[in-house]
Amino acid sequence: MTIKIYGVPISTCTARATACLYEKGVDFELVLINFFGGEHKQPAFLSKNPFGQIPALEDGDLTLFESRAITAYVAEKFKEPGTDLIRHNNLKEAALVKVWIQVESQSFDPAITPIVLEYVLAPMKGKTADQAVIDANLVKLEKVLDVYESRLSSTKYLAGDFYSLADLHHYPYTHYFMTTPWASLVNDRPHVKAWWEDISSRPSYKKMAEAIASG
Amino acid sequence: MTIKIYGVPISTCTARATACLYEKGVDFELVLINFFGGEHKQPAFLSKNPFGQIPALEDGDLTLFESRAITAYVAEKFKEPGTDLIRHNNLKEAALVKVWIQVESQSFDPAITPIVLEYVLAPMKGKTADQAVIDANLVKLEKVLDVYESRLSSTKYLAGDFYSLADLHHYPYTHYFMTTPWASLVNDRPHVKAWWEDISSRPSYKKMAEAIASG
Repeated sequence: MTIKIYGVPISTCTARATACLYEKGVDFELVLINFFGGEHKQPAFLSKNPFGQIPALEDGDLTLFESRAITAYVAEKFKEPGTDLIRHNNLKEAALVKVWIQVESQSFDPAITPIVLEYVLAPMKGKTADQAVIDANLVKLEKVLDVYESRLSSTKYLAGDFYSLADLHHYPYTHYFMTTPWASLVNDRPHVKAWWEDISSRPSYKKMAEAIASG
Repeated sequence: MTIKIYGVPISTCTARATACLYEKGVDFELVLINFFGGEHKQPAFLSKNPFGQIPALEDGDLTLFESRAITAYVAEKFKEPGTDLIRHNNLKEAALVKVWIQVESQSFDPAITPIVLEYVLAPMKGKTADQAVIDANLVKLEKVLDVYESRLSSTKYLAGDFYSLADLHHYPYTHYFMTTPWASLVNDRPHVKAWWEDISSRPSYKKMAEAIASG
């Protein structure tokens, strides 16, 4: 049975889920939700995710939501063949993947999300971006990227010298962020820049970017 | 070799990590950090966690940070014997644990944390609690708890009819929240109340609460 993802390609969280499916080469069907029409707040979708947020995944009789739970499920179910995104055969490496997945979720995401929402999403909704919000979060993001620069000077990827789900989780917001005037925050840090160029050259990233571009 | 946790008992994130160790019956040594003296911002601790946040875990030559990564590591390393907190033998149940771990992290925590920080921590630092912050987050928390009430009317615990890491992750902030004037948000929702009474009666919760009380 084909896995279904309910969402829209331009959604960062939908993109995080689909990028993982692309990375593992898993076929799936994208079921489009009328996001700007509020379909995700209607009962049919709320039965899949009671919080009314995209994406949701259906795999047979299993329904999941939260993009990082969806990627973790996909990475576990399809851990072989191909790149093992969770290092399931190595307890220590698997633990470091978990650490950097949390760093993305707890430190990187809270800083980069408001910037992208203000700069990219506010104009799409006919609103003016709030520069004060952007500025405050640029300061936070710089501090996070300083830690990344140090980390990536000793390991090629965040969790170690191996690409993992922790890296993949950075795809969607960084993709949008690199279209803003503040891409220099990434490009001025040589190890962060090299890391971003590496992971954004992967086929899974390119497929995600194409899907976003197609709207 | 004994696992070391660097932190302080009254810290919510330290408490989340130690609660998991209590739950699995794993001996550990709590290495006290002079939190109010800023020891976690000094080089010795930054070498364990470059973000300068407690707790950190050391297990032999492995150093981890981020409380939810620490619990996931402990739950994986010690999945047997005792309660399997991650349902490692059941892909679907394991996926639902991941979903509700994300819900705690992405929806519950961002609402309850500012309330607890303002009501409990601000006075400890000689500051006045910001009631506007508390009020805004009480509204958010109510919405989250409405979803929990619905969920817990069909399953005994968040991920299903089994206690899991998703439930345990709620211990520390809810522990503090129940000391605030707004504990009725939990107590007025019968299924949330029953769930909280159930999980807060577990020995792991009681040990955590005793450690917090001992300061």
